[in-house]
Amino acid sequence: MAGDVELVQVIRGDRVESVHRGHAVICDGAGQVLEAWGNGAAVIYPRSSCKMIQALPLLESGAGRDLTDRHLALACASHRGAPIHTDLARSWLADMGMDDDDLRCGVHAPNDADAAAALIRADEAPCQVHNNCSGKHCGFLMFGAHLGAGPEYVEPDHPVQRAVRAAFEEMTGMESPGYGIDGCSAPNFATRIDALAAAMGRFARPGGDARGTAMRRLTAAMARHPELVSGEGGACTDLMRAMGGKGAVKTGAEGVFIAILPELDRGVAVKCSDGATRAAEAVIATLLMRLGALDAEAPVARRLTHGPITNRRGIETGHLEVTLG
Amino acid sequence: MAGDVELVQVIRGDRVESVHRGHAVICDGAGQVLEAWGNGAAVIYPRSSCKMIQALPLLESGAGRDLTDRHLALACASHRGAPIHTDLARSWLADMGMDDDDLRCGVHAPNDADAAAALIRADEAPCQVHNNCSGKHCGFLMFGAHLGAGPEYVEPDHPVQRAVRAAFEEMTGMESPGYGIDGCSAPNFATRIDALAAAMGRFARPGGDARGTAMRRLTAAMARHPELVSGEGGACTDLMRAMGGKGAVKTGAEGVFIAILPELDRGVAVKCSDGATRAAEAVIATLLMRLGALDAEAPVARRLTHGPITNRRGIETGHLEVTLG
Repeated sequence: MAGDVELVQVIRGDRVESVHRGHAVICDGAGQVLEAWGNGAAVIYPRSSCKMIQALPLLESGAGRDLTDRHLALACASHRGAPIHTDLARSWLADMGMDDDDLRCGVHAPNDADAAAALIRADEAPCQVHNNCSGKHCGFLMFGAHLGAGPEYVEPDHPVQRAVRAAFEEMTGMESPGYGIDGCSAPNFATRIDALAAAMGRFARPGGDARGTAMRRLTAAMARHPELVSGEGGACTDLMRAMGGKGAVKTGAEGVFIAILPELDRGVAVKCSDGATRAAEAVIATLLMRLGALDAEAPVARRLTHGPITNRRGIETGHLEVTLG
Repeated sequence: MAGDVELVQVIRGDRVESVHRGHAVICDGAGQVLEAWGNGAAVIYPRSSCKMIQALPLLESGAGRDLTDRHLALACASHRGAPIHTDLARSWLADMGMDDDDLRCGVHAPNDADAAAALIRADEAPCQVHNNCSGKHCGFLMFGAHLGAGPEYVEPDHPVQRAVRAAFEEMTGMESPGYGIDGCSAPNFATRIDALAAAMGRFARPGGDARGTAMRRLTAAMARHPELVSGEGGACTDLMRAMGGKGAVKTGAEGVFIAILPELDRGVAVKCSDGATRAAEAVIATLLMRLGALDAEAPVARRLTHGPITNRRGIETGHLEVTLG
C-alpha cells in the first residue's frame, strides 16, 4: 500500500524468506499523532479491531445497562467458540427471548480446536454462536430491540448500523469514505489508520459524559476478561493477561491490531499491507513493549515478536525480526 | 523483498484492502529468461515447489526403477493426507520393509478435513504418513536404502541430501548460497527465482539422457495424477485437472508456485514476498492463462484469479485483482 514501510522479516536459516510491510501509528488521548511508521493517511478497513466502537451505541443508549463486564468483553471479542464463549452467547440470546436463528453473523466451525473436535465427535454442526463475532451480534440485537427496529440489523441503513456509523465517525474524527461488508455480514467502515489510532487514543482518555463512561466500561471489560476476547492461546488473550490490566488490545482480519492504554494515555493502530496476522501480532507486541505496557520477559512478548519458528518435529527453523522500517 | 512489484490486490467493497508484492519469471526450455516481473535475482527458498528436483536422484540412480507413476506423483506432492495419499504412503513403506517410524518428516493433522474428522471420531492421533511431505520422504528412504546409507536421511551431509543438492545446483545452474531447514526437516536449498524458473524450463525440455528420462517421468506422473499431488479442492490438483495434461504445477510454502509446460517449452516460478498462498495461486493461474496452458473459462481459473471472496453467509464481499506490477 502506498507509503508503507517494512515492518517484519521472516527468517529461515540465515536468510530472509519473507517480508511484511505496513503502517503503524501511536496517538495520545487527545487523538494527536505522536509517532508513525509508513503512511498514516492510508485508508484501511479496521475489521474486528473496532468492535469496541461498534459497541458504544449499545451502552450510550442505555440498552445495555444491565450487561455485565463479561457480556461487554464478548461484544468486543473475536472469540474462539469455546464453551466459555458459546455458553455466554446462548444465555445472552435467551435473556433477550431470542435464539441462534436471530443472529445474522453466519456459521463457521469454532476456532478452538477442542470445541471443533467435540462437535465432530457429537456429529453436530456448528451454530451461529460459534462464529467469532457472535458476541458483537448479540449486542447489535439488544440495541436493535431497544430501538424497536427490524430483525435485519446488519443492513447498512438499519438504525443499528446508522448509529454505529455515527459513533465510528465521531470517534475517528472523520467521515468514513465508505464501507465494505465484513465476514460476519455487518458493514465495516473504512477510515485512515491515523484516525483509527486517534479513536483508540480517545478510548484511553475517556471523559465524564455518557460516551466516556461507555468507553471506560468497554476497555475495562476487555482488560478484566481477556479469556473472552479471544481464547486460550490467542494473541489478544495472552497479551492482555501479560499486560496485567494496563489496557486492551484487539486484532482485526487482514493484518490489523489496535491497543488502548489508559494508564499511558496512548492509542495504537497497526495495519500490515498484505493482511498477515503474524506480522500485525509481532508489531503490536513490539510497540506495547516500547511503550512500557508489556514486559519483554513475558513469554507472549518473545513468542509474537521473535518466535522461534519451529517445524513438525519441533526443530527451530527460523524466527521473526521486527524491523519497523 | 528488494525489487519486488505489486502482484495482487485484495478488494473489499470498492476499496483495496490488502496488496501482495513479489517476483515472477518465465523461462524457455533452455533456461533463458523470456519475461520477468520484479527482481529475477532475488534469492528465495523454493520450499515444496522443488520436490520434483528432489526426486531426480531417486530415478537417476535406478533406485526407483520399479515405482509407478502414482508413487512418483506422491513423491512430488504436498498432499492432504486423505486415504488416497496415506494408503499409498503406507504400502510404499511396507514394500520397503519399513514403517511410519522410519520417516523423519514429523507429524501433523491431515489437511483434508474429512480425514482429520475421521481421526478425531476414531480417537486416533495422526501419523507421519499424514504429513503432506510423506511421499517425498518415502522417496528419500528408498534412495537412501539403495545407497546403503544410514537412517538419518534428512541430515544435510547425508548422502541422500548431498545428491539432492548436486541435482538442485545442476538444474538451477548455480551454486546454492545455503539452505534452511524445511517444515518436514529436510534441507531446502536457496536459489535465485530466475534460476528456479530455469530449472522448470529444463524440466519442460527434457533430453534423452538419464536425467531427461527422469524429468519426463516426473512431470508426466504429476500431470497424470493431479489428485495425488494435492487433493480434492487443492490448487495444484484443480489446476492440473483443468490443464488436461499440458504440464505440471506445484505450490511451495511462503508464497511459491512453479509450472512445467513441456508442450509450450516453458518453465515458470512465482514468489510472493510476504509468503501469501492466495497471491501465489492467483499469479500462477494468471500466467498459465497468458501462456495458453489454462482456459480462462475453467472454474479454477476464475476462482484463483478473481474469487469472489465470500463471507460466512455466502455474501460476496470482495475479490482479487491480479495486477502484475
